[in-house]
Amino acid sequence: MKKFTCVADLGDLRAAVAEALEIKRDRFAHTELGRNRTLLMLFFNSSLRTRLSTQKAAMNLGMNVMVLDVNQGAWKLETERGVVMDGDRPEHLLEAIPVMGCYCDVIGVRSFARFESKQEDYEERILEQFIRYSGRPVFSMEAATGHPLQSFADLITIEEHKRTERPKVVLTWAPHPKALPQAVPNSFAEWMNAAGYDLVVTHPEGYELDPRFTGGARIEYDQRRAFEGADFVYAKNWAAYRDPNYGRILSQDRSWTVDAAKMALTNDAWFMHCLPVRRNMIVTDEVIEGPRSLVIPEAANREISAQTVLKRLLESL
Amino acid sequence: MKKFTCVADLGDLRAAVAEALEIKRDRFAHTELGRNRTLLMLFFNSSLRTRLSTQKAAMNLGMNVMVLDVNQGAWKLETERGVVMDGDRPEHLLEAIPVMGCYCDVIGVRSFARFESKQEDYEERILEQFIRYSGRPVFSMEAATGHPLQSFADLITIEEHKRTERPKVVLTWAPHPKALPQAVPNSFAEWMNAAGYDLVVTHPEGYELDPRFTGGARIEYDQRRAFEGADFVYAKNWAAYRDPNYGRILSQDRSWTVDAAKMALTNDAWFMHCLPVRRNMIVTDEVIEGPRSLVIPEAANREISAQTVLKRLLESL
Amino acid sequence: MKKFTCVADLGDLRAAVAEALEIKRDRFAHTELGRNRTLLMLFFNSSLRTRLSTQKAAMNLGMNVMVLDVNQGAWKLETERGVVMDGDRPEHLLEAIPVMGCYCDVIGVRSFARFESKQEDYEERILEQFIRYSGRPVFSMEAATGHPLQSFADLITIEEHKRTERPKVVLTWAPHPKALPQAVPNSFAEWMNAAGYDLVVTHPEGYELDPRFTGGARIEYDQRRAFEGADFVYAKNWAAYRDPNYGRILSQDRSWTVDAAKMALTNDAWFMHCLPVRRNMIVTDEVIEGPRSLVIPEAANREISAQTVLKRLLESL
Repeated sequence: MKKFTCVADLGDLRAAVAEALEIKRDRFAHTELGRNRTLLMLFFNSSLRTRLSTQKAAMNLGMNVMVLDVNQGAWKLETERGVVMDGDRPEHLLEAIPVMGCYCDVIGVRSFARFESKQEDYEERILEQFIRYSGRPVFSMEAATGHPLQSFADLITIEEHKRTERPKVVLTWAPHPKALPQAVPNSFAEWMNAAGYDLVVTHPEGYELDPRFTGGARIEYDQRRAFEGADFVYAKNWAAYRDPNYGRILSQDRSWTVDAAKMALTNDAWFMHCLPVRRNMIVTDEVIEGPRSLVIPEAANREISAQTVLKRLLESL
Repeated sequence: MKKFTCVADLGDLRAAVAEALEIKRDRFAHTELGRNRTLLMLFFNSSLRTRLSTQKAAMNLGMNVMVLDVNQGAWKLETERGVVMDGDRPEHLLEAIPVMGCYCDVIGVRSFARFESKQEDYEERILEQFIRYSGRPVFSMEAATGHPLQSFADLITIEEHKRTERPKVVLTWAPHPKALPQAVPNSFAEWMNAAGYDLVVTHPEGYELDPRFTGGARIEYDQRRAFEGADFVYAKNWAAYRDPNYGRILSQDRSWTVDAAKMALTNDAWFMHCLPVRRNMIVTDEVIEGPRSLVIPEAANREISAQTVLKRLLESL
Repeated sequence: MKKFTCVADLGDLRAAVAEALEIKRDRFAHTELGRNRTLLMLFFNSSLRTRLSTQKAAMNLGMNVMVLDVNQGAWKLETERGVVMDGDRPEHLLEAIPVMGCYCDVIGVRSFARFESKQEDYEERILEQFIRYSGRPVFSMEAATGHPLQSFADLITIEEHKRTERPKVVLTWAPHPKALPQAVPNSFAEWMNAAGYDLVVTHPEGYELDPRFTGGARIEYDQRRAFEGADFVYAKNWAAYRDPNYGRILSQDRSWTVDAAKMALTNDAWFMHCLPVRRNMIVTDEVIEGPRSLVIPEAANREISAQTVLKRLLESL
């Protein structure tokens, strides 16, 4: 595996989950694989779970880790050729990226959607430039349109808890005070489709996601109807994708908050969220603290998904 | 040992000091103990000595280390249940703490007194929540009311330099331009009492510390009288503890600065301070640079106290 | 080797380059040398290449690494004795430096010229105090007047690419929107002279460097004439050195930008720059992206120069 930005990069998904669960049983079985190998983690945006879980995963494999926080405001990279660089962008990405590649063996990049240009976000310009110019295997630690390490952890968690071969999985929009990227719901839909689950996406009208990710999933505007018979409920906020509202908040309707009454409509579903979560906006205290909440095991599996990805990238060196 | 927040956690203090001195003789004797073990160091407040000495101690034991700086302003954790989280607190501690616990084996936390509520500070709410919810052994890297790694290093330093079985140790208040927490003097008093030394605490009236820490120590308002016959002088500033002045500066009286004339009243005492120190406020250049100053050996012993604590926490896993 | 701040510290330069090239062939041949040894990297100024390449070099040698970013504004160290420290400088360097020395085996320091006082900059007050008070081998990660790790990497790169025993090397000033220190051109001149190359320095009048560094190099105010027959062209901006203009920008004349027409005057010269580089100010896109550009190999050799220096410092312990 030479890069990791989407579900297709993993190849056979069943094999990948099996490998992940084997790593989970003994996460120190491959400490020689990363010896004298260095991971560079590059953050254009802040991070808690991704930072710690990916660093832990790399150390489990015996790798050295370097973490670089790039204040998005402070270190502006010039991206155009031909520009006279006499302004506030002191370095061109055509130098910065290959130089960073010189000092490491694998690069993880976090770079969120900026909501300035839908085209720029959905072309994944930053991530793609790292893939093209760094000379190293690159993986996404959440990019503009996807968060595959999260979705892989979600998939592992569902595989650990499902009671039927093809569970019904509901991705539900929920309200939030800020405009959030579509990276998590995009990836989640993509991965659930790839796993062959019965995926239903529910949200208010106007919040339709890019069909490239949701694929053949059923879109249901009635949240209660969507929840009926669900085995897993995955809550997440996102801002609008469709033009002309890209990046905007269209609703903060708290009738979409996931609560116990709605969960009672399900097939005793497990509740999931990628965290951090706004309690009593996204989900009530009762549900997130209840016995069917998987938010902590899901977060714990971030270490496992990252370690599986890093193991495969190392094996390709 | 499952946590380290106060002197009682160490059990037999004589044995703990002996263990520390043995570690000091060969600090790489236990590099296998920490193999594949990860320390998470979490700073809600800035740090120089604690950061470097604790990280060094963990590496001496063969541990991996992850450091997370939490800007107290930027990452506000919600602590109450039932709140609709639509404001500036994006994450609830009931998720954040167990998630951090997922990615490590031991957690060190630094969280100073905020001087907003004496009750909140003296209940050690942040530290206690980590102990309760992280699922990992937790140790204090200076909390609201105590700094036990500092006091343990102070104790080791005194044991290395004392000339009598039960030395006279004087904890003296000294002036400072800012309002400082009571964590260091609280812990110092607690540890000196536990060691069975002859402890005298001297400060202007109104600066009395919580008797839970000072215990049976003699309180002396005449600094010169306190210094008579002292074997060790430990200088430190703190803000008032007693109501209604909690957290306030009552005096900046520079007649309390430790100088050579006062040190001449002692039994050729060693001078100690936890650093950083305001010269010519807390102590004169002459005394801190003099041959009886222990401030550097004391700082060096921070590595030893941290390593002893980490060794015991690792042994409990 | 007990310190590394200038070319003389390396001793026989030919032997040092040979050692560097041997390290480059197998950078993991000495992983035992750094075992249980800790490097402290201390940054008073921001860093990308130096941070990553030095950390990577230390890890190649099996060292542990601690990185401390000191916000120059936030942590002001008092440097004078006798001062009553009641202002905004909470710690004296006479405590801070030896304490940092306690927790590590080798210290790297980055501290740029401040352009407040030429004397203070050219006395290298910060770096020299670390050498004097830390009790540890100290190396420069770019100081006020020199950047020897960069120049060592430059030398290695020239040795790898030169076609004659004594190449003609041209150091050329080029325009830039900000006032930059003389550290890189100072060191470059010093190292090229030490290597015995045919060094020509070209710049507008008023930009003369300290002759302590340029030594016997020819100074040429006509850039085109300087380029004639050059084997290597090293571009760099710097602010004025001479009084009364120390630290000032005297020219932003873009006729000094290195372009293809000027490179055509050379002996098919290699183009070099330490990065980050302002394209189309310092050099055109065409030249920096062309087949004779060495900027990326030069940056890659930063790992090698740092590793050679660290290896020698470790061998001295």
